[in-house]
Amino acid sequence: MSELPRFGAAQHVEVFVVPCSGPGDLSGVQALVEAGRLAPADIVAVMGKTEGNGCVNDYTREYASASWAAFLAPHLGCTPAEAEARVGLVMSGGTEGVLSPHFTVFTRQPARADAPRGKRLVVGVAQTRDFAPEELGRRAQIDATADAVRAAMADAGIANAADMHFVQVKCPLLTATRVQDALGRGAAPVTRDTYESMGYSRGASALGIALALDELDEERAAALTDAAVLSDWRAFSARASASSGIELLNNVVVVLGEAEGATSPYEIAHTVMRDAVDAAAVRTLLRERFDLDADRDADAVRERLVNLLAKSEADPTGTVRGARHTMLNDSDINATRHARAAVGAVLASVAGRTALYVSGGAEHQGPPGGGPVAAIMRIPLAAEGAS
Amino acid sequence: MSELPRFGAAQHVEVFVVPCSGPGDLSGVQALVEAGRLAPADIVAVMGKTEGNGCVNDYTREYASASWAAFLAPHLGCTPAEAEARVGLVMSGGTEGVLSPHFTVFTRQPARADAPRGKRLVVGVAQTRDFAPEELGRRAQIDATADAVRAAMADAGIANAADMHFVQVKCPLLTATRVQDALGRGAAPVTRDTYESMGYSRGASALGIALALDELDEERAAALTDAAVLSDWRAFSARASASSGIELLNNVVVVLGEAEGATSPYEIAHTVMRDAVDAAAVRTLLRERFDLDADRDADAVRERLVNLLAKSEADPTGTVRGARHTMLNDSDINATRHARAAVGAVLASVAGRTALYVSGGAEHQGPPGGGPVAAIMRIPLAAEGAS
Amino acid sequence: MSELPRFGAAQHVEVFVVPCSGPGDLSGVQALVEAGRLAPADIVAVMGKTEGNGCVNDYTREYASASWAAFLAPHLGCTPAEAEARVGLVMSGGTEGVLSPHFTVFTRQPARADAPRGKRLVVGVAQTRDFAPEELGRRAQIDATADAVRAAMADAGIANAADMHFVQVKCPLLTATRVQDALGRGAAPVTRDTYESMGYSRGASALGIALALDELDEERAAALTDAAVLSDWRAFSARASASSGIELLNNVVVVLGEAEGATSPYEIAHTVMRDAVDAAAVRTLLRERFDLDADRDADAVRERLVNLLAKSEADPTGTVRGARHTMLNDSDINATRHARAAVGAVLASVAGRTALYVSGGAEHQGPPGGGPVAAIMRIPLAAEGAS
Amino acid sequence: MSELPRFGAAQHVEVFVVPCSGPGDLSGVQALVEAGRLAPADIVAVMGKTEGNGCVNDYTREYASASWAAFLAPHLGCTPAEAEARVGLVMSGGTEGVLSPHFTVFTRQPARADAPRGKRLVVGVAQTRDFAPEELGRRAQIDATADAVRAAMADAGIANAADMHFVQVKCPLLTATRVQDALGRGAAPVTRDTYESMGYSRGASALGIALALDELDEERAAALTDAAVLSDWRAFSARASASSGIELLNNVVVVLGEAEGATSPYEIAHTVMRDAVDAAAVRTLLRERFDLDADRDADAVRERLVNLLAKSEADPTGTVRGARHTMLNDSDINATRHARAAVGAVLASVAGRTALYVSGGAEHQGPPGGGPVAAIMRIPLAAEGAS
Repeated sequence: MSELPRFGAAQHVEVFVVPCSGPGDLSGVQALVEAGRLAPADIVAVMGKTEGNGCVNDYTREYASASWAAFLAPHLGCTPAEAEARVGLVMSGGTEGVLSPHFTVFTRQPARADAPRGKRLVVGVAQTRDFAPEELGRRAQIDATADAVRAAMADAGIANAADMHFVQVKCPLLTATRVQDALGRGAAPVTRDTYESMGYSRGASALGIALALDELDEERAAALTDAAVLSDWRAFSARASASSGIELLNNVVVVLGEAEGATSPYEIAHTVMRDAVDAAAVRTLLRERFDLDADRDADAVRERLVNLLAKSEADPTGTVRGARHTMLNDSDINATRHARAAVGAVLASVAGRTALYVSGGAEHQGPPGGGPVAAIMRIPLAAEGAS
Repeated sequence: MSELPRFGAAQHVEVFVVPCSGPGDLSGVQALVEAGRLAPADIVAVMGKTEGNGCVNDYTREYASASWAAFLAPHLGCTPAEAEARVGLVMSGGTEGVLSPHFTVFTRQPARADAPRGKRLVVGVAQTRDFAPEELGRRAQIDATADAVRAAMADAGIANAADMHFVQVKCPLLTATRVQDALGRGAAPVTRDTYESMGYSRGASALGIALALDELDEERAAALTDAAVLSDWRAFSARASASSGIELLNNVVVVLGEAEGATSPYEIAHTVMRDAVDAAAVRTLLRERFDLDADRDADAVRERLVNLLAKSEADPTGTVRGARHTMLNDSDINATRHARAAVGAVLASVAGRTALYVSGGAEHQGPPGGGPVAAIMRIPLAAEGAS
Repeated sequence: MSELPRFGAAQHVEVFVVPCSGPGDLSGVQALVEAGRLAPADIVAVMGKTEGNGCVNDYTREYASASWAAFLAPHLGCTPAEAEARVGLVMSGGTEGVLSPHFTVFTRQPARADAPRGKRLVVGVAQTRDFAPEELGRRAQIDATADAVRAAMADAGIANAADMHFVQVKCPLLTATRVQDALGRGAAPVTRDTYESMGYSRGASALGIALALDELDEERAAALTDAAVLSDWRAFSARASASSGIELLNNVVVVLGEAEGATSPYEIAHTVMRDAVDAAAVRTLLRERFDLDADRDADAVRERLVNLLAKSEADPTGTVRGARHTMLNDSDINATRHARAAVGAVLASVAGRTALYVSGGAEHQGPPGGGPVAAIMRIPLAAEGAS
Repeated sequence: MSELPRFGAAQHVEVFVVPCSGPGDLSGVQALVEAGRLAPADIVAVMGKTEGNGCVNDYTREYASASWAAFLAPHLGCTPAEAEARVGLVMSGGTEGVLSPHFTVFTRQPARADAPRGKRLVVGVAQTRDFAPEELGRRAQIDATADAVRAAMADAGIANAADMHFVQVKCPLLTATRVQDALGRGAAPVTRDTYESMGYSRGASALGIALALDELDEERAAALTDAAVLSDWRAFSARASASSGIELLNNVVVVLGEAEGATSPYEIAHTVMRDAVDAAAVRTLLRERFDLDADRDADAVRERLVNLLAKSEADPTGTVRGARHTMLNDSDINATRHARAAVGAVLASVAGRTALYVSGGAEHQGPPGGGPVAAIMRIPLAAEGAS
């Protein structure tokens, strides 16, 4: 099996949002392949929303990844494991509230001779090495992630961090077995609580992204130690999205941005929700960046919107807009589940649809209680002609 | 202990929204009493959002009710049980997502001589008799509820159903013990599933409201049998809100509307969300009925809004805006919890605050998947002078 | 791909209990294959305990089944779907409490010429056709299951129902989609509640087993209508185990019993726990049938016990030994999960180990609140020589 | 209101186990009072099992405590708050599996002149001061608890630690609000995770008990620092039971033991389960200490057993009897809930009844994965005559 072909900025990206009836259902993808619309060999990344709990024992992510690997292998002429190493498979568990399970599939080909060029959507991927359990949530994970983000930017042909709009990282978590493994070697994991380890891993990954995108002030970047993780909340990335899962041991990085020379029929932009109910941020993004009023132009929004990619979290202060929330004290439903339900519904009320990529746990991803949101939009045909 | 005094439409209602740190925390209410702002003897109804699961074994509702009864008793010179019989204590469990636990306290006094009169907020209360377990979810509950709604309208001084904007019913549920009690007597309860019984009880109560408010067409009203409950979804009320709880055996009814002659400094209006993400319905209500743009006039909305009262439910078709949701297949989190999280966040994103009364389980309350929303608004001082 | 070879009673069964680190982990099975101890082509059935919630949205069952099918396919020279049709893959979700995820793998070969023959463990399999959603929980499912049990008995070489000790059925459930499908065709499913549908499907399957094993009195068997399901609790099988799952549309039947002429190094017996804490029933079975005292012979029990196969349920009367339990009123944790945790721990305290097959939801499987338990035991070498 | 009267060892304890239909149901207690069997003024402690989740947001404990305080106040001629300060109200949430909600009520009077004296059950109580959030789970809580245990021993008239058989501590937890309070003052709480704080608080309390009962070797006792909590698992008490709850800010201590000179008709003994399925430990205790065979003398066990008091936990190694358990990776159900379900069922299978006091979270209470069990038994009449 060969590696993914690389084209720098001269690439043509297509994005497919495919619903599924369960984490193992790729019949929608199969139909696209059979219709000649999607060539499996061109797939560079898949970002899935699966219907598990999104927490430690969520096997729907692993199941979806395994299903994708088994699906891709014969098309790529390789083993499922090799397919998994080639393609950025990022599965985010949890479709609480109105969210609808789906896969967002990114393909990449050389820029098309017959298509208009411009500053358009590009995608890049990279991976870190496997981490030891005790490296999770610490400087080792931060640094390796930053390096991988830089590698993925190069893969995407993006030279300037200002053109980066979304960085998705899939990162590991600690299980009881992994904790025991570390302890047995005399190494201290950052926490022994498996659910809590997910936050540490996401947090360190996000700080790695912030480092690579120069989002931290110089002093803070210089002083970035283990202790900053889940502690210095003023250190964050406005474009980071990290999901942790039981099914991998390293960080997988997918970057989305714009680069001059691409022929992809999409553009991308991002904003930051300041809290979980900040619909206004997204309404403003649509208006200012894409000239769309979410109310008046509801049909156009639905036509042009490919997907919203967002992070959510329970505000760590215990309040939203000054009033107490109960997410952090709830021992029946984990806080990330509450947060996905809330942010997913808010975004759906703006976008007019529910198959949205909303991931939970936004440690160092956007300000405390808020989170980054990126919008991938189809370039309207009129604009196509003009560009 | 005397009964609640009744004034017909010539009433002056005050509404207090009081946060709490738990279901038994009435310190905020106590502070209002000590400040001379709230006279316990004037309290006619309390609608609380408590932080339990909102399902069968949610004792936060009963705890809050017991705390209120114990709080009121010395002020009313009666026993806690008598206080509970006098005041409409409606506790709705579940503050999923961003929702914030709070109590909405309604007081009622005679219309004030020195205040402007007009068509303003009025409140009325009534109760049904206790139901046998096998009556829940059936015609007996429908009819008794309709009678109680009419009694509460009379109590509120509302002659015309068109002036009714919200009817809150608190209704019983079946526990394993109550099911066994019925079976032991040879009577068949409508279901043996305790969680499911909540939906039947809410559904029958809502149909009783629809009957009392003439919301059903003649044929449907005539044919309203046991079989219609949780089956004929085209039969619904646009102003009904029913919550079921383990802590009572009868239906408690609180009606909110407007009547000419009241001096309350509030108005009320309602709309219907067509689905869980229909923010547009509420934005339209604010604009058309109160001349407020939710984006531009965000500050004014927060100043004038006393509370939104809303119902939510998982769309029974299994989809929202055409895409599959997973609420009805989720065996870890009940569907009502998902729905409250979603609708609560959508409403909070419009209202700019999170202490909102969003209740789950909207069977026959609004169209399938949607639900009624009422807005209680302060009458602006300028308007006051003019009225 | 050929069908499973059939040998009647002249068979040699081996049973392997293999731990796993997750529903997709077959590394333990792979190791047995590589060590030459397990020939995949001989596998006739797999009964797995996977670590999902065991309820509607438990995809760990489907994931494990898919992993097994993918594992078997190259060994059998067929597609994964064909492998799934050939082998009885029964995955039961839920390892609450101390239960440990594992697979019990049954292989079947012709009776060995060099091994002692006797009345020993035999296994048989069969499947029904796919069911329409509205057939679940009704007479159609009962009858088709009874036919399949008879076919599986014939496959096992068991002529007499008295020699049957365990019948495992894997049966479908209703999802929101399947309910809508039926309603769309004007057909009424037995319930619209997806979780509740699991009980109906298990109940009808168990009545089918009772019918096939002649466990019902004549009058009851004659009158077995739709209405008996989840209603006539005196109709039950003492050897039935039914698990429902989202991953199939028909019933898969695996029968375990003893037949003269087999050379398997195992015997099997069964008892019935009268309630969830009836450790005494299993202690008695070990003592009377296998001459083992659970306390004094704890080491021997651990050496000889291959697996316990058991069903559990929350007592439908709402009490255990006269005291109220809270399983049926718990809206945070489904009753089947409570019951598995309880029965699993009780059995583990007798068996001295936790990788036990305890399945939840025992409708018509054993008496109300109790359930069947079968013990597969190694025949001690001394006995081997003598038999 | 006066303080509890104190009699040293010359006391007469009665114990009542009273079922309830919910956390606020004291009708069974009321019936005992009305029957003249229970004098509220004699109540010294109540240990309740309530049906919440036993975790952070379990308000059933607070509700039960409030109900008890309201019930006691008029009998004691004091306010509910004063009643709560006088009586040791320890409510443990969580009746997973077969466990049955109930209250165990301890009364204390002077030793009776007409009753036989002997080494019999005595009870003592004490309280610590309120803790600051940052003191929880640390040396400050350990030391204050040890002092309170010594005070309670004196109150019970127990001079020798060998006569102590059970120490119940009710201790606080951290909520999001309390965490913010500490952080706002520049103080670092031991954790910011509210669920995790419960374990720290229980662990420090148990180490305080171990210190007071001289259960730690000298070196370990000398070196007992903050770092030992939830870390040095070889430091534990074989008689400690700590439950954390949201409803209090200090530690409440109730000790149970035997002292010469008491006339109570009960004796008490304890053992340690080495893991969650160690039924053998309790069977041995019954046999060796009370001459009862759990199988053969099942009726006598049920007659004499007043209650079992036990602690449970998910084995921190991630295994039970060498096989993986899934409790610590389960993000839907907290590990303490699994553990209570398992241990509760195991004990019920020995005791033959389900109203047992099984509390979750056994950090430093018994060995890792195991926990202390105390049995309060009625002294048989024959023995009475002889003593």
